[in-house]
Amino acid sequence: MRISPEIESLLSLLSRLPGLGPRSARRVVLALLKNPQGKMLSLAQALEQAASTVKTCSVCGNVDSSDPCLICSDPTRDQSVVCVVETVGDLWALENSGLYRGSYQVLGGVLSPLAGQGPEDLNSRSLFHRIEEGRVKEVILALSVTVDGVTTMHWLQEKLKPFAVAVSQLGQGVPMGSTLEGLDDGTIAAAFAARKVVNG
Amino acid sequence: MRISPEIESLLSLLSRLPGLGPRSARRVVLALLKNPQGKMLSLAQALEQAASTVKTCSVCGNVDSSDPCLICSDPTRDQSVVCVVETVGDLWALENSGLYRGSYQVLGGVLSPLAGQGPEDLNSRSLFHRIEEGRVKEVILALSVTVDGVTTMHWLQEKLKPFAVAVSQLGQGVPMGSTLEGLDDGTIAAAFAARKVVNG
Repeated sequence: MRISPEIESLLSLLSRLPGLGPRSARRVVLALLKNPQGKMLSLAQALEQAASTVKTCSVCGNVDSSDPCLICSDPTRDQSVVCVVETVGDLWALENSGLYRGSYQVLGGVLSPLAGQGPEDLNSRSLFHRIEEGRVKEVILALSVTVDGVTTMHWLQEKLKPFAVAVSQLGQGVPMGSTLEGLDDGTIAAAFAARKVVNG
Repeated sequence: MRISPEIESLLSLLSRLPGLGPRSARRVVLALLKNPQGKMLSLAQALEQAASTVKTCSVCGNVDSSDPCLICSDPTRDQSVVCVVETVGDLWALENSGLYRGSYQVLGGVLSPLAGQGPEDLNSRSLFHRIEEGRVKEVILALSVTVDGVTTMHWLQEKLKPFAVAVSQLGQGVPMGSTLEGLDDGTIAAAFAARKVVNG
């Protein structure tokens, strides 16, 4: 394709982003090119702003422009409840649902012997620091229900045993909007085990 | 969602791009946040570079960092054949296929009485200028086969009648990989009309 090197390099950077390919990158660039001085420059500035301000929260591991992050420094949130998640993406998903009003601990991954990821690679120290200081009453384990995620939750349960904190785990079962036909055996088994009496 | 204003505004700009929504914008930002000084800044710079260099080619209406654009100034391309397209996106699609070696005319739209788009809103003057100067031997009309696109092609055919140029239109029929079942009546009719004898 005969195209200017500036647009070419923009296309190549965009097409490597998750969820985008060469075709969708072209659509994005064409939309931006309709207004280079407006949309395109504001996106460039927003990216620069974000890149220059983001830091990792020293309390929970969240990514934000302040440290401690907006969640850890929010007095209206219950800092005595800590929800342990794998990634900032998981934190955003929970925040987006709008139903959780406590704080977080972002591990940055899970234990994975195959990927060579051990306990020292997880951001768990600040969680235990908060617990040792007596600031935590409840820990909710909200890691992925994968082999590595479950292993990590077991490991955390063991590590949390010496402390006087309530430890819970998200409920397992049939997801909303799902048919039984499409579910794996593990989920069906978990849903059976977690069945609830509904006729009193 | 409790999130820094910098990331918030980045999310909101990204989620308004074509093909992206709030969810995919979050995925993109999370991927960029893994390497703010690398990926994020290079994307910002690529956007700025593109925004500051792009211009519209005064010959054909293409968007490029030089005027005339790389295609119009390429001596290895046949400048006597002009393919008339609606948008730069259509030009890119043709360029990407790699099979056209002539030049282009980007109209920037089609005649659309409903949208109030008349002949004066189309970038056709430079095409007739090139024809009047005797630089064009063939014009290929490659506009969308929609009501407005077809109207525009008829209008161009009329306008081109006084000149000694060959005018052609893209072949119509069944697209590759398509089943007859999924096609509209217009396409089936066009495919029947354009049927070819195959047994000599």
